[in-house]
Amino acid sequence: MGLSTAFTELFGLEHPIALAPMGGSAGGALTAAVSRGGGLGLLGSGNGDEAWLARELPVLSGEVAGRPWGIGFQTWAVDDGTIARALEHGPRAVMLSFGDPGPFVERVRGAGTTLIIQVTDLEEARRAVDLGADVIVAQGTEAGGHGARRGRSTLPFVPVVVDLAAPVPVLAAGGIADGRGVAAALALGAAGALLGTRFQATSEALVAPATARAIVEGRAEDTERNRVLDIARGSRWPAEYTARTLGHPFLDRWRGREDDLTAAPHARREYQDALAQGDIPALPRWAGEAVDLIDDLPSAADLVGTLAARAEEALARAGGR
Amino acid sequence: MGLSTAFTELFGLEHPIALAPMGGSAGGALTAAVSRGGGLGLLGSGNGDEAWLARELPVLSGEVAGRPWGIGFQTWAVDDGTIARALEHGPRAVMLSFGDPGPFVERVRGAGTTLIIQVTDLEEARRAVDLGADVIVAQGTEAGGHGARRGRSTLPFVPVVVDLAAPVPVLAAGGIADGRGVAAALALGAAGALLGTRFQATSEALVAPATARAIVEGRAEDTERNRVLDIARGSRWPAEYTARTLGHPFLDRWRGREDDLTAAPHARREYQDALAQGDIPALPRWAGEAVDLIDDLPSAADLVGTLAARAEEALARAGGR
Ligand SMILES: Cc1cc2nc3c(=O)[nH]c(=O)nc-3n(C[C@H](O)[C@H](O)[C@H](O)COP(=O)(O)O)c2cc1C
Ligand SMILES: Cc1cc2nc3c(=O)[nH]c(=O)nc-3n(C[C@H](O)[C@H](O)[C@H](O)COP(=O)(O)O)c2cc1C
Repeated sequence: MGLSTAFTELFGLEHPIALAPMGGSAGGALTAAVSRGGGLGLLGSGNGDEAWLARELPVLSGEVAGRPWGIGFQTWAVDDGTIARALEHGPRAVMLSFGDPGPFVERVRGAGTTLIIQVTDLEEARRAVDLGADVIVAQGTEAGGHGARRGRSTLPFVPVVVDLAAPVPVLAAGGIADGRGVAAALALGAAGALLGTRFQATSEALVAPATARAIVEGRAEDTERNRVLDIARGSRWPAEYTARTLGHPFLDRWRGREDDLTAAPHARREYQDALAQGDIPALPRWAGEAVDLIDDLPSAADLVGTLAARAEEALARAGGR
Repeated sequence: MGLSTAFTELFGLEHPIALAPMGGSAGGALTAAVSRGGGLGLLGSGNGDEAWLARELPVLSGEVAGRPWGIGFQTWAVDDGTIARALEHGPRAVMLSFGDPGPFVERVRGAGTTLIIQVTDLEEARRAVDLGADVIVAQGTEAGGHGARRGRSTLPFVPVVVDLAAPVPVLAAGGIADGRGVAAALALGAAGALLGTRFQATSEALVAPATARAIVEGRAEDTERNRVLDIARGSRWPAEYTARTLGHPFLDRWRGREDDLTAAPHARREYQDALAQGDIPALPRWAGEAVDLIDDLPSAADLVGTLAARAEEALARAGGR
């Protein structure tokens, strides 16, 4: 049967499931796997780094088997040229998150490409509707990776965005890692679910083995939103975004003292030294509260179908059938 | 048809919906209304104040029409005598939240009364299972009123508690205010939903009209977890609990400076003066992120059936039927 929604119909998908365009870890192989599995793969191109794209796009093209796929950007980190170059590769969708998508809307729509905008509060949701987004992703604060400093939780946030955006389809993001979560997203009125953390722990993800293991072993209560690791590593992320990460020695040392850390150049040197000595992981381990539900490392291509089948079962069970 | 679950069967309810035992505002009339409507009403007795119970219990008995009902306590605020006196009134269930339920378990079970324990993290959930809770309520951080300082969000928290507690039925709490939220709770594997904020905005709630209006008009982004208002009003709530409230002048003045506030007796005098002059509401306005979904003041008795009917529709729609 399958779970058919406005989102699956828009792209001709088998399942109402999207891969979050995780900067760096949603590479060509993972994107292609999710699309082959019947969902929508979204390449995590972050700031549109050309060397990264030159490496990942050929993998994607080689493996996607003609299925629809898209590409995602961190809006604050890109310019018109970045988007224009990406469009040359013929993505079916461009997803913009974190920052004002306004300047890029014409470029994307002018190419006949579907525009997906990720939002973290009602003001952003209203703006996405006004800009004519084709799909809106409503991200809750339990999500892995970056998001709003003062976030909303997925369960009460999604239905409000659904009402505000109707008839534009909304995807739920944040805290979804199994079929029950996908089912809940649909029950809330979403047209699908967008998953990040879950897809990091798959065989196709561009993730260090130790990070994948940390996600499988990690507990939600060890994750927390912070700016500490972005400041320590000298990242350009704007101050209004925190990121949910697993525990980290620098987090224990600087928690709640972001301003002191910013003013302490020696701490950034310490971070570089710790990196060089292999005492800390190469990157923060971005992960959301859904880690509690993740205890294996499947193939992403298989996972999409499993999630959808379990979601159907969960809905049938909940409805008393 | 109706949505039948292990929770509805345990109590012989029509609908998988419970009233949160909101200290003060879930009085006799509201509790009776929810039970008459086919859900489980839980009297919000807080610390078991005898004068309050002497007023509310007769209302409850007079209006509950023989339906099952229960009574809830803030565990840190009660002793064995409180529970023993409550049991004399023949509640079908006792619900314990916030603090160690261990010392009261024998007393409740010895009376043949169903034991409901509310939990906010996995450690509390494990303890509730070990203590033999008959029903576990998994509360997310988007909830109105008190909860854990470092909270979990409802959507990813509920399924983990469901797995951990099985076959003990779990209710989802936090952020649920319409049929879609109830449907999502069931999709996540919960046996029902427990609602607080939504039931405050009903004709039967013991809530000041201005507070009910503030809930109808309020926005989720105006709610925040804090200890400021408990400190300012000189409440005995232990420091490990924050409460989610609507905005408040004292919150703007003291946000993030709990320690300073504790050390500032003049601020508590200022709070008392502001109260006396009617410049601030008599109580903090406890409300959760679900306020965005609340825009009317229905009768609670009607609301229970409406929520259940909409939940059934949401599940049927999500499952493609
Ligand atoms: C490792 C990681 C990297 C991420 N990078 C991006 C990104 O570059 N662009 C983006 O739009 N979202 C990014 N996100 C957020 C996702 O789009 C999505 O909101 C989130 O993963 C959903 O929550 P979940 O992790 O609980 O599934 C990232 C998430 C993770 C876990
Ligand atoms: C005004 C108010 C008072 C509350 N008082 C109590 C209480 O005394 N005991 C208790 O167990 N929970 C109490 N809660 C929390 C509820 O049990 C429940 O977890 C919460 O209301 C669920 O989230 P929601 O408000 O989004 O529905 C209270 C909640 C509110 C809104």
